[in-house]
Amino acid sequence: MSTVSTALKSRVRRPQLLKKVMKADETLQFFRGGQYLGWSGFTGVGYPKMVPLALADHVEKNNLQGKMKFNLFVGASSGAECEDKWAELDMIDRRYPHQVGKNIKKGINEGRIRFADKHLSMFPQDLVYGYYTKDKPDHKKLDIVVVEATAITEDGWIVPGASVGATPELIQMADKIIIEVNTRLPSFEGLHDISMCDLPPNRKPYLIMNTEDRIGTTAIPVDTDKILAIVESDRPDMTGGNTPADDKSEAIANHLIEFFEHEVKQGRLPENLLPLQSGIGNIANAVIGGLAKSRFQNVTVFTEVLQDTFLEFFDSEKLKFASATSVRFSPEGFDRFYNNWGKYKDRLLLRSQQVSNSPEVIRRLGCIAMNTPVEFDMYGHANSTLVCGSGMLNGLGGSGDFLRNAKISIMHSPSSRPSKKDPNGVSCVVPMVSHVDQTEHDLDIFVTEQGLADLRGLSPRERAQVVIDNCAHPEYKPQLQDYFDMATKKCLAAGRGHEPQMLDKVFKMHTNLLENGTMKLDSW
Amino acid sequence: MSTVSTALKSRVRRPQLLKKVMKADETLQFFRGGQYLGWSGFTGVGYPKMVPLALADHVEKNNLQGKMKFNLFVGASSGAECEDKWAELDMIDRRYPHQVGKNIKKGINEGRIRFADKHLSMFPQDLVYGYYTKDKPDHKKLDIVVVEATAITEDGWIVPGASVGATPELIQMADKIIIEVNTRLPSFEGLHDISMCDLPPNRKPYLIMNTEDRIGTTAIPVDTDKILAIVESDRPDMTGGNTPADDKSEAIANHLIEFFEHEVKQGRLPENLLPLQSGIGNIANAVIGGLAKSRFQNVTVFTEVLQDTFLEFFDSEKLKFASATSVRFSPEGFDRFYNNWGKYKDRLLLRSQQVSNSPEVIRRLGCIAMNTPVEFDMYGHANSTLVCGSGMLNGLGGSGDFLRNAKISIMHSPSSRPSKKDPNGVSCVVPMVSHVDQTEHDLDIFVTEQGLADLRGLSPRERAQVVIDNCAHPEYKPQLQDYFDMATKKCLAAGRGHEPQMLDKVFKMHTNLLENGTMKLDSW
Repeated sequence: MSTVSTALKSRVRRPQLLKKVMKADETLQFFRGGQYLGWSGFTGVGYPKMVPLALADHVEKNNLQGKMKFNLFVGASSGAECEDKWAELDMIDRRYPHQVGKNIKKGINEGRIRFADKHLSMFPQDLVYGYYTKDKPDHKKLDIVVVEATAITEDGWIVPGASVGATPELIQMADKIIIEVNTRLPSFEGLHDISMCDLPPNRKPYLIMNTEDRIGTTAIPVDTDKILAIVESDRPDMTGGNTPADDKSEAIANHLIEFFEHEVKQGRLPENLLPLQSGIGNIANAVIGGLAKSRFQNVTVFTEVLQDTFLEFFDSEKLKFASATSVRFSPEGFDRFYNNWGKYKDRLLLRSQQVSNSPEVIRRLGCIAMNTPVEFDMYGHANSTLVCGSGMLNGLGGSGDFLRNAKISIMHSPSSRPSKKDPNGVSCVVPMVSHVDQTEHDLDIFVTEQGLADLRGLSPRERAQVVIDNCAHPEYKPQLQDYFDMATKKCLAAGRGHEPQMLDKVFKMHTNLLENGTMKLDSW
Repeated sequence: MSTVSTALKSRVRRPQLLKKVMKADETLQFFRGGQYLGWSGFTGVGYPKMVPLALADHVEKNNLQGKMKFNLFVGASSGAECEDKWAELDMIDRRYPHQVGKNIKKGINEGRIRFADKHLSMFPQDLVYGYYTKDKPDHKKLDIVVVEATAITEDGWIVPGASVGATPELIQMADKIIIEVNTRLPSFEGLHDISMCDLPPNRKPYLIMNTEDRIGTTAIPVDTDKILAIVESDRPDMTGGNTPADDKSEAIANHLIEFFEHEVKQGRLPENLLPLQSGIGNIANAVIGGLAKSRFQNVTVFTEVLQDTFLEFFDSEKLKFASATSVRFSPEGFDRFYNNWGKYKDRLLLRSQQVSNSPEVIRRLGCIAMNTPVEFDMYGHANSTLVCGSGMLNGLGGSGDFLRNAKISIMHSPSSRPSKKDPNGVSCVVPMVSHVDQTEHDLDIFVTEQGLADLRGLSPRERAQVVIDNCAHPEYKPQLQDYFDMATKKCLAAGRGHEPQMLDKVFKMHTNLLENGTMKLDSW
């Protein structure tokens, strides 16, 4: 047994567990290649930092690259210094359901890592249903689940850190558990609202009628006999800087705020809007930053992850309450958060991802969902995951959970992106997206720096014209209009003109990008 | 005022309303071209039969084709003799969100009818949100809503017939109402469970924990001042015959029942399964027929529509309870249903389509969803709506509502279909579907007469191999395997091999079908 620091003693309030304290290195004995592992963590916060890196060091020192591989399940992305290091050392065989990191992406796209993305609301339930362990020979549990805690209660229950994610369900499915107690971070106790997963036919409603409603416990129940080890951790969440807004994202934010004002005036939104969901990135930052400066008061947020601009939104006193499953601040943002804990703690809560992203709750609350796609098409489909229909970026995340169930489903995107050859080599508006994650049946509003297209109540050909007119980059407008006109003429004549497409030409912009570095065509 | 028949008097229990009784012809005075109309009805039952046909006669007799057009909103499809007649007479400008009929389909695909499909759970709420009337100049209500009732209560509330559908929300949005009281059908009173639509932030949970749970009223509340007319109707729901099972659909049903038995054995399904959702058509008939002969007991159903084989399922005593939004029996099926009313009435109920198809309830109950696509692809996407990416069939219906939220999401399909030139000219398994309605993130199981592919927990390339091996028609297997091998080699080498596709060739099977009448290729 290791010596136990005072800091650790103050966080582990169940004394019997202190005899399980050990160093990260000492946990190596529990791991074998081929195991099914779970980690806590979501959007790069609240992940275990000691044990995964000790394992990586072990593999590196003993030249076990590709010889000690694991099936790894995390609520969403883990810290890049952990999972990306694992990918670099070829330690990941299978990975679900979301990831961020250069090496892990490379491993997936070069065929070394078997990855599949999944709606973040569904992953934890499918895990509990046994869908990810059904071919596991010995038993149906995850072999070891490693979780970060900021405290352990008298009952041995786990108080997570900056994310809840799928940790409750990972614990539910764990054969054995290792807990990293992070004594560098403050205890997050009281900030969480934890729900476990019942199996049908015994599932219950999530009785959330307002963003601030609590339905669970403040810690994760654990069978303490399953705990293999307690490891003290002194490492912070290794988040990067905040992506600042730029001219394009500011223009998008302005279009959106104008739209919200119009909807309030028309009586389709209340004065304080409806609970907002906002993704990650500079457009999301610009939108939230814009709202912090807007005339809207008492705004609420029901989302997946909070980033830095939400602190400004809180400070503006315009944000009343925020519900999420993780707080992913920059290092400076975390400092600001921890230093003003008293100011924020009663105005936000962190739920299990199955609840933060629950279709049930999102539809009931009538959320306003906003996300950034890879590309979208003139009929209203969006690609959130695969570049040119094949190459994985990060995964679907919770985009579908929100966009499918929101009262207003919004996709915001620049109208074009640079390719290596051309500053506007990639049009974000295309005839048909090369991979569909969000369908025309789900999306209401598209907005680029060029303008906003309101597709509600429109038929496909009406939508196409509005998208081309309002959202496409001027350098692509004529090209998209030509395609639309040709396809319409041809398909209407053939008696299949509901949603005109020419399947022999539909991906010509994409193949031209792959071959010639730009989506600009000489001719169709 | 018309004379009031004894039959009608016995159905209209609010005497004040009897002074509004008139003949269908007499309601013509209320209609003008350009109006926004709502009709009751869902899957061709419970629709108004007198007033729409009187209007059609009026247009035909007075050569008003194309000069008297309406915006028409119905929960799903109406009776073909009504809406298809309207389409034939060019009386439909705009139509949401689902339709069935040769002429209406033709009108949509030739560009005369502005149609858009929508998830059937979302259509009524979007209607109440004002999304379909937002550009209406005068006011935000539907001008006239025509509904079929089988009784009117003392309070003037409407007791629907064989469907509830979106009638509650149509009534909520109605400026004026015409009620057709059908005295030919028995009163369905007591069979319905009606919910109206609250607006966020005031929406409430649907507290359904079992298929038989009731949360609403047995009739639709109405502001009786809005009632323009009561018209007696003596016409039955004009349904067609039942589609019988054949060898292929029997084979599919057998694969599925074997799969269910396996899941029970593995502990992933309870002994009596979980609430089933089943679509329309001969495969659905074969599956339900198969279950009626299976060893499963106390099965429950939570679905959109019940067709004839459910009567057998009830009679087998293996079906305990069924919840739906419509009963769409054949004429013989309806006779059997009406003649044995006492036997069935306490074992089924009809809900609003917003509830029968609610993501909230479907996910909570852990439904088993089964639907037939137009085509599906090797990575697990399915096309439910558009032939060759452009031509509208009927619309999305409730397929997405169920498949996105079920515990097990199943697509069943023959492996091939005949084209004009070739008995297997159309492969239902393709490299990429020409339109995506259901994504790879949603579907678990594909089954054809060839076999069953269980995609749960598999990465995209693993899925593709299982789909080709287990589901593709033998005449297409080598061709699909070639594509998959080529695409894999090429995309992995290019570092974008997560989900390999060759965008320049991906729709070659479809374009060959359009040009040469078969999906069989000489080479890729």
